[in-house]
Parts: sequence; C-alpha cells; structure tokens
Amino acid sequence: MSAVGVDIGGTKLLAGLVDPDGSVVARRRLRTPPEGGAAVAAAVVEVVRALWQEAGSGPLPVGVGAAGLVDLGGTVRYSPNIPGWDGTPLRAELSAVLGIDVSVDNDANAAAWGEFRAGAGRHAEGSLLMLTVGTGIGGGLVQGGAPLRGREGLAAEFGHMIVREGGPPCGCGNHGCLEALASGSAIARVAREGLARGAESALAGIAEPSGKDVTRAAEDGDDFACAVLRECGFWLGVGIASLVNALDPELVVVGGGAMQAGELLLAPARAAFAERVIGAAQRRLPLVAPATLGDDAGMVGAALLAPR
Amino acid sequence: MSAVGVDIGGTKLLAGLVDPDGSVVARRRLRTPPEGGAAVAAAVVEVVRALWQEAGSGPLPVGVGAAGLVDLGGTVRYSPNIPGWDGTPLRAELSAVLGIDVSVDNDANAAAWGEFRAGAGRHAEGSLLMLTVGTGIGGGLVQGGAPLRGREGLAAEFGHMIVREGGPPCGCGNHGCLEALASGSAIARVAREGLARGAESALAGIAEPSGKDVTRAAEDGDDFACAVLRECGFWLGVGIASLVNALDPELVVVGGGAMQAGELLLAPARAAFAERVIGAAQRRLPLVAPATLGDDAGMVGAALLAPR
Repeated sequence: MSAVGVDIGGTKLLAGLVDPDGSVVARRRLRTPPEGGAAVAAAVVEVVRALWQEAGSGPLPVGVGAAGLVDLGGTVRYSPNIPGWDGTPLRAELSAVLGIDVSVDNDANAAAWGEFRAGAGRHAEGSLLMLTVGTGIGGGLVQGGAPLRGREGLAAEFGHMIVREGGPPCGCGNHGCLEALASGSAIARVAREGLARGAESALAGIAEPSGKDVTRAAEDGDDFACAVLRECGFWLGVGIASLVNALDPELVVVGGGAMQAGELLLAPARAAFAERVIGAAQRRLPLVAPATLGDDAGMVGAALLAPR
Repeated sequence: MSAVGVDIGGTKLLAGLVDPDGSVVARRRLRTPPEGGAAVAAAVVEVVRALWQEAGSGPLPVGVGAAGLVDLGGTVRYSPNIPGWDGTPLRAELSAVLGIDVSVDNDANAAAWGEFRAGAGRHAEGSLLMLTVGTGIGGGLVQGGAPLRGREGLAAEFGHMIVREGGPPCGCGNHGCLEALASGSAIARVAREGLARGAESALAGIAEPSGKDVTRAAEDGDDFACAVLRECGFWLGVGIASLVNALDPELVVVGGGAMQAGELLLAPARAAFAERVIGAAQRRLPLVAPATLGDDAGMVGAALLAPR
C-alpha cells in the first residue's frame, strides 16, 4: 500500500504519494504558509486529501516530517523558522482532522530514514548517520535498523554539536556549532568575510552572495569560491569525525541544498574526517557519501514511517 | 548465578565476583603486567581461576572490559596504554583457555552498563550516557535498554569528539578533543600553564602537580586550583551539550578518577551544558550526575555483560 509523506520545511512544503519501495508516484510542492501557526496544519490536511483523492483509494497512511524539535508524541517543541508553531500538538491535530493515526517526526530524522530505506543507505545493514546541509544543518540517525530518537525524540541535532567553542555565532544562540561553520549560511558568511577583506573573485560583483552563488562560482573555477567550500567542507569533516567517534555508523550520508557543491564540499570533509577519527588505521572507516534522494528524502522517509 | 567481571586498565586490573544485582562479593586488584602482550591475558586467566575457586562452584560466566578500541568480535584493535596488545583476539584467547565463552568489551562501555544496571542509572528507563574522566576520557552509551556499540563496536569514544578544533594536542594525535581539555591530564596541564605564568597557588610548591594535587588544593580552598577545575569543568559541559544534542539521553553519568573533584568539576559542567543545549527551555534536560560505583563500575558492568 502506498502512503502519503509530507515534509514541512521553513519555506517549502513537499508532499507525495510514496510506494513501499520508496518510489514517488505523485507529488505536490507548495510554499509553507508564511503566517505559520494553524495555517500549516491546514495546508497539510488539504494536500493530504488531494493526494488521497488522486490515489482514488480512500484514506492512506500519512507520515509527516517537520522542521524543528519534534517530541515522541508528535508535538513541535521548538521550530525557529515557522512562526507561532512552538508547542503545537501536530500529531494530535492532524490525526483528529484526518481521522487516522498520523506520524510526526523531525524532518531530518525522516530524511535519514528515507535514505536508509530507499536512498544512499538502502544496502546498509542497520546503521546510517545523515547530515542535511542547507541553510542550517539537520541530522538523523539510524541504529540497529531503526531511527534513534532519544528520550524525548530530540536526538540527532548534529548541527548543534560544538566543534569550535567560542567560534562564529549560530542561529541557536551559541557559538561554534557545526551549523555555524559548515552550513549554506556559513558558506555565505565565509565568502562575505573574505570579500570584505578584498579577496579577488567573480563573487565580488554580487551584493550578498548566497551559498548557491559560491557553489556556482566554484564550479566555474573561481579559486576564492573553491577555497570557501574547502573551508566549510573541512568543518563538516571535523563534525563527522566527532560523530563517527561517538557512534561508529556504517555510512555517513550528506544531503541538503548545499550538496549541490558535491565533491567541492565532500572531498575536504572526507580528508578532515579521516585525519581525525580515532584509530583510523585499525578500523574500517564509514563511507561518507552524498544523499541520493535529493529534496525527496524527507517526504519519502516520512511516508515510510507512516503508521500502517 | 554470580559472574566474574574483569576490568583491564592501563595500570591496574580489577576482578570481582559479582551477583546478578551488581553487588560485589569478592574482589582482586592487581597491577596490569607492564610488559603487556600475552602477559595480560595470562594474568586475567589466573585471577579468574582464583575467583572461581573462591566461589567453590566450578566455572562461572566471565565478562571483561578492556582499555582501548575493542571490536564486536572481542579483538583489541588499538590500546595505546598497553604495549604489544593491538590486534590481540582477546575474546578468542580467553575463551579457549578458560573453556567457556567469555565476553570482551571496551572498559568504558562496561562501566556505562554497570552504572545503568546497578549504579547511578539503575532507575533509568532505557538510556544513559557515561563519561569516565581519568587520565583520558572514555565513554559508554546505553540506548533502548542495551549498550550501543556501533558497526564494529567502536562507538562511544566521546573523549575524542572535537570541541575546540586547533586546541591543545590530544594523546590520539589530534587537537582540541574533549580529552585534551577536560581529562585529569588536562587539569594538570592547565595548572602547569597557569603556574608557569606566575599564578599564586599552593600548587606552586609542587614540581609537577597532578590532577589529584589540583583537586586536593581546591578542596583546601586554593582559588587558582578552583579556577583550573572550573575551566576543565566548563569544557566537560561543552562536550556534554554536544552529546545531549546528538543523543538526547535520560541521564549523563560522570565517573572516573577526576570525579574526586566532585561538584568542583560537575557544577561548572552543568552550567556550560545547560547554556548550550538546543531548545533548553522546551525540553527536559537530562540529569548530569556523578557515578556511584566508583572504581567498580567497569568490573561490575563486565560481569553483568558476561554470557550466561
């Protein structure tokens, strides 16, 4: 039986009809209601009903991945990018309106599950660690063939591991989090700082270069842009080393928008990681591989987590 | 049925007869053979046989915790503090000589299991994260009511999470690991550096003050020694924040020799941790508590992991 997966991000909302093997048979992409709050659940209900109708088979299972700290009961504890959403009992609300038991998890946990079941980790035996490197950095963890969620469901916030205490400020209020050093926002910041110091680059012609601008320039051979990605990739590798030391997974999957930079980001990450993991010569290092489901990972994983 | 637990450290070897509830009914403490290699397994065999004889009941189950990277097959991959030991198939060797299936795990994993079953975590539902702060920093992790060991059994090396990339050198060859900033060795280093800068302290009269000397001076009210422990406790808290963000455990237990400093180390750790964990106001923070089994934790945990 197919299921509906919904991935609620800070700016976009993806929903799809997903087969049990993870293939997407129908999809919708909309803007996350910028007013936040109850409008978000209403948009989810509408898109789920539209997909049910398209499937023509009555209510199908529904799984949701949502940006933010989502607890085991499916309540959104903290979601800095969606206004008026903190404390929303999303699972209870959606289940009541849709008339079936809906699952609600963190979006990066859902993405990790999607990659484990149907993406880069589909041949893994039982463990996978995922980093989604976008504007921020999300994380998801599969151990023993199941998502590892922690006591309250708040585990795998790998973007907020501190790798350089006292370093650049992070959106979470701390300094030196992995997210502050290796995310898309960090790429933009490092570029901005370099340009302010007079770096020679095609990026100097852009008012506020974004992470995407940096990647594009790097692909065009801009040395400065390449160096920016090397720096952020280095920090990504530092974070991966800490995570592998702590969790010894089979596979580390890196996805998210910043992975448009591909090997320009991943190659320096692999080098920094391999230099820092403990006992590197005495162990099999996990593969550090790009995600394969792209933007669909969260939606696919959410569908595969839907209660059946 | 009782079991024998053996904790093999870099300098001392503890063995005991342990009841199923974790109480120790007999114990032995010896020096780890400094020549390392085969002499270590020989010492284990001897002490196990002595405890079997003392129990007067024929072969009892045996579990071992060993310092170093120990894989799922019970082979010591890497043990920097015991010479000639890397690559030793300890489980196979001990099982063959003793004639029963012996379990071999990392010493800090065993200690975490001991604290979970019979110590500070005995009332925990299913998860616990432990740091053993001694000369180095070891780690152990219980999730879902079972030890989390990772793909090869090398997980929970929390001492080698990088919290200050580019920071002080660590025994592992990297810089800025938690162990380099918050272990007993780090306490001694911070004290030495402060004294070299002319700090006023009773410690100035000691040629090479150890972590223990610092703790003793702090307990006597030495301001400088207190500040050293505050600094190292701060870093411990930074590491705990990263770990709680990543793993969301019920309980963080801190043991090891450096915990003789007690609250002088733990109070600043708690403060630094609570300031850095993500969504602190929206979640229940895990208790950060001292271990209760002291030196026995590894031995007790090893016994409780023994195959029955």
